[in-house]
Order: sequence, then structure tokens, then C-alpha cells
Amino acid sequence: MTEPATEAATETATEAATETVEVAHPDLRGVGQGLSTVLVVGTGLMGTSVALALTRSGVSVFLADRDPTAAARAADLAAGRAELPPEEPDLVVLAVPPVAFAPVLRVYTSLYLNSTYTDLLSIKAQPLLEAETSCSNPTRFVGGHPLAGRERSGAGAARADLFEGRPWVLTPGPEADPESVRRCTEMVRRCGADLVLLPADRHDEAVALVSHTPQALASLMAARLADADAELVALAGQGLRDVTRIAASDPGLWTEILTSNAPAVLRVLDAVAHDLDALRHALASDPPDASAVEQVLRQGNAGRARLPGKHGAPPATYTPVPVVVEDRPGELARLLVAAGAAGVNVEDITIEHSPGQPVGLVELAVRPAAADQLATALRGSGWTVHL
Amino acid sequence: MTEPATEAATETATEAATETVEVAHPDLRGVGQGLSTVLVVGTGLMGTSVALALTRSGVSVFLADRDPTAAARAADLAAGRAELPPEEPDLVVLAVPPVAFAPVLRVYTSLYLNSTYTDLLSIKAQPLLEAETSCSNPTRFVGGHPLAGRERSGAGAARADLFEGRPWVLTPGPEADPESVRRCTEMVRRCGADLVLLPADRHDEAVALVSHTPQALASLMAARLADADAELVALAGQGLRDVTRIAASDPGLWTEILTSNAPAVLRVLDAVAHDLDALRHALASDPPDASAVEQVLRQGNAGRARLPGKHGAPPATYTPVPVVVEDRPGELARLLVAAGAAGVNVEDITIEHSPGQPVGLVELAVRPAAADQLATALRGSGWTVHL
Repeated sequence: MTEPATEAATETATEAATETVEVAHPDLRGVGQGLSTVLVVGTGLMGTSVALALTRSGVSVFLADRDPTAAARAADLAAGRAELPPEEPDLVVLAVPPVAFAPVLRVYTSLYLNSTYTDLLSIKAQPLLEAETSCSNPTRFVGGHPLAGRERSGAGAARADLFEGRPWVLTPGPEADPESVRRCTEMVRRCGADLVLLPADRHDEAVALVSHTPQALASLMAARLADADAELVALAGQGLRDVTRIAASDPGLWTEILTSNAPAVLRVLDAVAHDLDALRHALASDPPDASAVEQVLRQGNAGRARLPGKHGAPPATYTPVPVVVEDRPGELARLLVAAGAAGVNVEDITIEHSPGQPVGLVELAVRPAAADQLATALRGSGWTVHL
Repeated sequence: MTEPATEAATETATEAATETVEVAHPDLRGVGQGLSTVLVVGTGLMGTSVALALTRSGVSVFLADRDPTAAARAADLAAGRAELPPEEPDLVVLAVPPVAFAPVLRVYTSLYLNSTYTDLLSIKAQPLLEAETSCSNPTRFVGGHPLAGRERSGAGAARADLFEGRPWVLTPGPEADPESVRRCTEMVRRCGADLVLLPADRHDEAVALVSHTPQALASLMAARLADADAELVALAGQGLRDVTRIAASDPGLWTEILTSNAPAVLRVLDAVAHDLDALRHALASDPPDASAVEQVLRQGNAGRARLPGKHGAPPATYTPVPVVVEDRPGELARLLVAAGAAGVNVEDITIEHSPGQPVGLVELAVRPAAADQLATALRGSGWTVHL
């Protein structure tokens, strides 16, 4: 079991490919002796992804799950060994759902007195409080929340690169053991994530804004469709699909998340309700108050513009190399043969051409370091490259 | 100028490629003599896309725009001729923004008395009323709204296949001339869209639900980010990006849309406000009322499940042919050489492989009719195909 996958980021096709094991993250191999053994408890999507990333970076990873076949499946995927470590691990990663957190933490903290503990839950003040009240060595607990995920769940959907370039919040309490913070920091770095240090309540305020309120509004919008006439729903387009995508999330897990973070969520929802009332008032006026309506839309523009990523796309992991290609069978193959001859691994391909146009643009996504090399090689073979 | 592009559907990479002109839609060539000449007024994204689709199907298309260079650009893209037709066209497509609709309709209806007229605006009751009051032959006007679009705007982003498989609503009034309805129906069919016939006010009720309310909620959510601390916004993920994507829409055009359809939008927003109040009340209770929170989330699940398309993805236009490919440079090229040798045009490519796995799955997207042919040919060359 893991965090709800639907809560977290969906990956685009551009992010779906990854480099081969041999060349990945040479800079992280053997860094520090502080993290040589890790036990991951809970081998769903998130736990198994952490395990894969740590294994890749050279850590000895052990896997546990209340369902032994789930741990065995993760082990089959080369995420680690499906057994408890022979000695105390440096770090225990609790990748379990909210309800299981406190009891599982209690079990392991009584088993391994000197290990460091972290979790992956999407709220942080409550786990910190639970750690302080339910275990004997709370200073060795450092709360964590990687803001990553996929729509698919389970070990089979796990990826070693799930956390690359994503924020990973650590929320060490004021009493936290420095060595434990260091170990968790190293875990974040080995997973390729961007470390963010925040107080637990500040973290919860952030996720109320960027995760929990969007979930609530997506559900409220989708709820309007539940009893609507089919001929109206049939006109739905991509805009509505995007706004309501996360409304498909697990209601049980999300009820737990929203109620656990109720005060922070409520503060944002109160502000939304205030703006919604103003918008309704503007539309109910006769004639409608256009400038008040436009004010809401402009404020939405301003907020939207603060999100990273053009058009809402996540920041590119790979560099696109655009090449002009004639629109006929065989040209794409010829291009990829040329790319292969240049020794560059093409991670993803995007094809764009308009009907009636004899040429199209093909974007070859490659690792940033390889983009110039590829462009030079392709130009040398006569291709037109717009890099 | 056209309808706001941001209002309409975004196309996925899978939809981005299209077949070549030569083989496209032979079944639509020369169908009916009722639509041999069409004048498209307004050569932005929507107007140029209609022009491209009609040209492809064998119609003589003429192009006009208040900016002559815009019409010339569309003509360069083979959308038609940038001039007025020598005689009355069968159909005039008004692809102009809301403010321009009535004056432009008045100009052309006084010029061509026997032509049929349609528009592409996203509300329908008001244009119908304007046609009835502003032109001498209102029975020849048949309102239309193709629910399609792209985030990019302008003739350069236009595509002949923009409307394929998308709903296109026609809202003929009770007095509409049957021959004019037939011509508009033929336009919809030639564009490959799915015809939906609705009364104008019923259409406006539908778009209030599936388009205008999502826009309002996306803007209200995004507005919360405008003044938020940067360290909070930095934790935004794909969920928030999806919910707020359309909040980047043009505020001027959307103010016009929302105020023009104020009563219908208000009815949906009132219901949203009612549910939002219930949710806030549940979260403000001590302890929070979990079952009331879960009720909102479950209702959201139920509404979301009514949308077509798995995981919110639009129905696939192409058939994916999944092929197992070893993860090393050159394999993809070898695969595409084999596909080219089979005479099949590959429309898009998706690469999926997990770190640490020596093989990946490559999906070649091809026209449905070509999928079996490709699978057979690839298997014959030793590839493992999971079709």
C-alpha cells in the first residue's frame, strides 16, 4: 500500500523514457557511507520507486510489506531484497497509508533503536505529532513528502526516475537528530529530487493550496455532472476533462487527507467561496457586471502564470532537437538511423505536421548534454535542424 | 480572428500527426452538389481549419479576413483562395469573434441574398437572436458550434483534422430554411465531426455546464495562487496544473462568453456554491465530518466517470501497435525501417521503458486500417508485437 497515486503528478510521454542503468547518475554512486542499508516498508508505487532509485544508486535495499507477495513482486523488479536486513538499517522508509503510519512506526522503532525513520505521507504536522507521542526515539524521525507519482498504482508502475526533478519536502522538527536529517537528505539526493526544507505546518499550508483545494474544486465540478442529462455531458471537451481529472481520486484516502488537514484547507476554501460569491453577484446583475467578471479571470491569469512550465507542461527533462522531415514513409527511419549513427540515445519523439504540408517537424528528445552533438551530426548528414 | 483557442480542446501528441492529403477521406469527395463553394470569413485557427477540411473534401473555398495578410497566410497554407467568390457562395462561415458577429453577418447577408450562413461561436441563443433582428433573411442562418480547438491560435496552427470525431452542434431555429440546414449538415460531415442538433438555449445550458463553469472554477483556483508565497507555489504538481490549465484563457473573450450566457452559468455556479458550503461546513466541524467530505468526493467520482475517454484521454484517432524493443541506440531506427518497408505511415510514437529493464515497449500509432498489416509485417521480420 502507498500514498494515493491519483493525488500525485501524472507523467507525460516526454518523461516516460529514461536513460539506461549503466550511465545513470554516476555522480551519486558510493556517495557517503551514511546510507548503505535502507528498509522500505510498503511496496506500492511510491515505496518501490524509492527502492528502485536507491538500489540504482548503490544502496542495499530491503523490502517489507504486510502482503509478502507484494514485497516479492517488488524484489522481482530488482527493487531490493524481500526480507528484513541482517542488522539495523541506516534508514527505514515508511511508505504506508496514513492509518498504518503510527502502528508501523511503533513496531519498527522498537525493533531498530538507532535507525533513522522517514515517511512519504502528504500531510506532515500530524505524522510528526504521532511520532513524538508514539515512539521512544522521536528525534530520529524526519517527515518527508515527495511530490511525485503516477496515475497507475502498485509496484509494477514504479520507476527509479519517479522523483527526478520533483520537489521532496523534508520537515525535521526542532529536536531532530542532525545525523538523521543528513541521511534523509542523502535519500532525497540519491532519488534525484529537489530537496525542500519546510516546517511541518508550513508544508501543510502549501499542500492545502496546491493539492488539497484543487482536489476539492475538481470534485465539486465533477459532482455537477453526476446527475446531468447525457446530451449535455456529451459535449464535454478537454478543458472539462483536465479540470476534473483528479476527481477520479480514491474518496477514502482523500477524505483522510482533507480531514487531516482541515484547518489549512478551510482557509483556502473560504477565500475561494468569497471570490465565487463575487462572481455570482456579477453574473446575477442586470446587465452582468463585466468588469467584475473580468477581474476574476485576470486574477486567474496572474495565478496561473506563477506555475512553472509553459502551458502547464512540466519542465522538460530532455532537450528537444527539432528536425525538418519530409512527410513520407521511411523518412523518420532514415532520421533515426542518422541519430543512432551519432551514438545518441533518443528518449522520445514528437511528430507534428499539418495536413496539406509536404514537410513536418520531428522533435527528438535527448539528454541535454547530447543535444549539440546530435544537432551537429544530423546537420553533417544533410538534415535541417532548428536547435 | 476566431473563437478563443484556449476555450477548446487541447490536442495530445498522439493526435498531432495526420494522414497525407492523397489518401484522406475518399468517401467524402464529391458528395452532394449542395456545397460546392464556401466563403470563410475570419482566417484564424478555427476558420482556417474549416477551410482546410472543406478544401480537402473537394469544396471550392474562398477566404476573407479584415486583415488581408491573415487571409493571404491562410491561402498560402492551401486553405483556399484569398478573395471573394465570383458568384454567391452556397455557404458563408462566420469565423469571427462575438463582437464582430452581428455587423459581419449584416454585411454579407446584404451582399449574398441566397447564401446559407453559419457561425462558430460558443454561445448560440444570442447569435440566433441577433440574426433574427439584424438581417433580412434570418431563416438562412443556422447557428453552429464545433467543440474543438487547440491551445495555439492563428492560421498556422490550423489543421484539416481539427474537427474529426468532435461534436459539432447545429442549432437551427424553428423557422430555419431546410436547404440551409442541409448545407450546414454537409459542412459538418465533410469536416469529419459528429453532428449534434440542439435548440439554441439547450446548447447554452450544456456549455454552461461543460465549458463555462469549468473555466470559472479554474480561474477561481488559479486566483488563489496570485498572491501566495513563492515557496508554497513551488510545490505545485500536475494536478494543480491540470485544474488550472484553462485559467490561462483570454480574459476579454471569456468575459464576453460568461456574461453572454450569464443565467445558465449562474444556475450551475449556484449549485457549486451550495456544495462548497456543505464541504466547508464539514471541514469546520470538530472533529471534521468525514462522511460529508467523502460524499462530495464520491459524487465527484460519479460525475467524472460520465466523461468519455479512459483517464480523461480523448478517444484515440490512431491505433497503437505495441512492439517490444531492446533499450539500445539503433533499435528504434531498425523498427522504423521495418515499418517503412511495410508501407505503413507511422503517425506517432510513444516510448515507455522502466529503468533497469533491458527492454521497452514502443507504441507505433497508425491508422486503424493499417494496424493489422503493420503487425503482420513486423512479426515477419522477427519483432514481438502485442496487438
